[in-house]
Amino acid sequence: MSPAHTEVTAQPADLDPCGHEDHPDCGIRDVLDRIGDKWSVLVIVELAGGPRRFRELQRAIDGISQRMLTLTVRRLERDGLVHRTVYPTVPAQVDYRLTETGASLTHLVKALADWSLTHRAVIAEARHQYDQTHPDHDIR
Amino acid sequence: MSPAHTEVTAQPADLDPCGHEDHPDCGIRDVLDRIGDKWSVLVIVELAGGPRRFRELQRAIDGISQRMLTLTVRRLERDGLVHRTVYPTVPAQVDYRLTETGASLTHLVKALADWSLTHRAVIAEARHQYDQTHPDHDIR
Repeated sequence: MSPAHTEVTAQPADLDPCGHEDHPDCGIRDVLDRIGDKWSVLVIVELAGGPRRFRELQRAIDGISQRMLTLTVRRLERDGLVHRTVYPTVPAQVDYRLTETGASLTHLVKALADWSLTHRAVIAEARHQYDQTHPDHDIR
Repeated sequence: MSPAHTEVTAQPADLDPCGHEDHPDCGIRDVLDRIGDKWSVLVIVELAGGPRRFRELQRAIDGISQRMLTLTVRRLERDGLVHRTVYPTVPAQVDYRLTETGASLTHLVKALADWSLTHRAVIAEARHQYDQTHPDHDIR
C-alpha cells in the first residue's frame, strides 16, 4: 500500500456538523432514528432473506414481543421500507417483504456489518491496550 | 433505467440472519452497539471536521452533559476510533481527532446520511399514504 493510498483512506468523509438541533438538515438524525432502532434493523436483516410471515419474524428475532414486532413492521411499512401482502385465503395469510427502498438499505447495513468484521481485530487490540494503560477507567 | 438494472438494484444484500443471540457472528450486533449510540455518532461526525478540544465538542453537540461526553470520548478512544493528544503546556491542552479507523467509519455514516436524503421524499410520500389508509394506527 503506497503512502498516498494510506493518506486517501485516512481522510474522513465530508460531513456537515450536526450536533445542534437547528443545524442544516444533513440526514444524520434520520440515520440515528432508523439504524438506532435495533428491532427495525433486525427485521430488515431477516427480510433480506426473503418474505416472512409475522410468526416467522417473531421466531427469527429473539426477545421481540408480539406488540413490539407489530409496531416495528407498521413503522417499516409506513416508511415504505416493507410491503405487507394480505392473501385472500381463509384464514387470511399475511406476509412481509422488503420494498426496493428497504432492499437498498440492506446494502448499507451490510457495509456496516462488513466494516465491523474487518476492524474487529484492530478494535479488540485497541481495547486491550487502553485497558492496560487506563486500569482505573471503568467505561465498559 | 432498464428493467434489468431495476431488478439488480432491488435485490437485498446477502445478509446472514442475526435475530438469535447465538447466531454465527455477522457483525450486525456490533453495528447496532456502535451506530445505535447517538452520542458516539455525533462526536464522530463533529471530529470529521478536524481535531477538537473537549469544550469545543461540548459546545458543538447540543444536550450532551460533561459526564456523557467524557464517557463517549473514552469509549471511542478505547475502541481506537479517536486519538487523544495531550500537549505539554501549562495548563495541559488536550484534543481529540479521528484515527484512521474512525475516519473510515465516517464514510459509512455519510453513506447512511446520503441514503436518508436521497430517499426522504419517497419515505415522506409513503408515510402520507399510510396515514391516509390507516387513520387508526397511532405509531408515530
